[in-house]
Amino acid sequence: MAIDPDTQSARRPRRTDPDRRSRLIDTALDVIAEHGIAGTTHRRVAEAADVSLGSMTYHFQGMDDLLQAAFIRLMDTVSERFDAMLAAAATKAQARAAVVEIILGKVWSNPRTLLLSYELYAYASRQPSLRPVMQTWMDRSRASLGRHFDARTARALDAFIEGVGIHNAADREPMSRAEVTRLVKLLTAD
Amino acid sequence: MAIDPDTQSARRPRRTDPDRRSRLIDTALDVIAEHGIAGTTHRRVAEAADVSLGSMTYHFQGMDDLLQAAFIRLMDTVSERFDAMLAAAATKAQARAAVVEIILGKVWSNPRTLLLSYELYAYASRQPSLRPVMQTWMDRSRASLGRHFDARTARALDAFIEGVGIHNAADREPMSRAEVTRLVKLLTAD
Repeated sequence: MAIDPDTQSARRPRRTDPDRRSRLIDTALDVIAEHGIAGTTHRRVAEAADVSLGSMTYHFQGMDDLLQAAFIRLMDTVSERFDAMLAAAATKAQARAAVVEIILGKVWSNPRTLLLSYELYAYASRQPSLRPVMQTWMDRSRASLGRHFDARTARALDAFIEGVGIHNAADREPMSRAEVTRLVKLLTAD
Repeated sequence: MAIDPDTQSARRPRRTDPDRRSRLIDTALDVIAEHGIAGTTHRRVAEAADVSLGSMTYHFQGMDDLLQAAFIRLMDTVSERFDAMLAAAATKAQARAAVVEIILGKVWSNPRTLLLSYELYAYASRQPSLRPVMQTWMDRSRASLGRHFDARTARALDAFIEGVGIHNAADREPMSRAEVTRLVKLLTAD
């Protein structure tokens, strides 16, 4: 097995850095956020992470492998926070409040995550191998919502969170808490 | 005033081609859809439109001017179709049916328009000068919906159309007509 050139040393025993791949994935997301997918290269990620280009080619088979790993990381990070908020709700009323909080607290729709999502959606439109990442992301959000709501309600809420998040970020004035609360109640009426 | 070099001729009187700028804008959208914003250059658009590079620099002050014009064209095209469908509705029931048709007929969420929207959203996230295009687009959709629904309902529907459109395009199976109809009714209850 090849050794990551940056952790290889003639003096110390050879070792691999188990966290390095993970840190490179985070750096790749930073580079995508700054330069877009088209401006993301192994070289740019290597420079941003202060590792050699050889380390990149050791950890990633190519650009698609790197982008796939980066977008899976994005999905994992957001899905975990999303699920934690719904898992903490004990009643349906608390679950509705959690959905309002997800929207207004920008769990998904903070500027960086939104921008990375647009990059992912655009890339997945061109590159079918990325579509399962979007699908799995939806599956996970709906499963989290499904802790409290039936499947069709979870699906409707998931789409609503998507749309309101995008619009609130672009709007002159985001939708008020009272209005988000009203709509979440409307969509989750028993 | 300078003359578009491609329409300039020593034999004929000098004239400008009034449709050329408009055609170049459509070609720019094709190039953005294929290569993304980062891969869009004056040269690529000139080649795709079969005009000289000089014609591009005659019609557009720079890349931002070209992208701005392209995204305004995207917004205009979609907003006009969107408005025509709502203008044709005579009753609230027909207006609800038009909203269902906008979602399922993919007035906005056809693959090309979706992809161009993601490109616009990502670009507007980085380039504040493009944000008014997104805002005007929302204003126009809401005004069209406002032909039949009050302002807060129009705003909710607009966000719902956005979210369901994105999810349906990525989902293994799009939301059924019956379910879209149920949700539109829920959001527009008097």
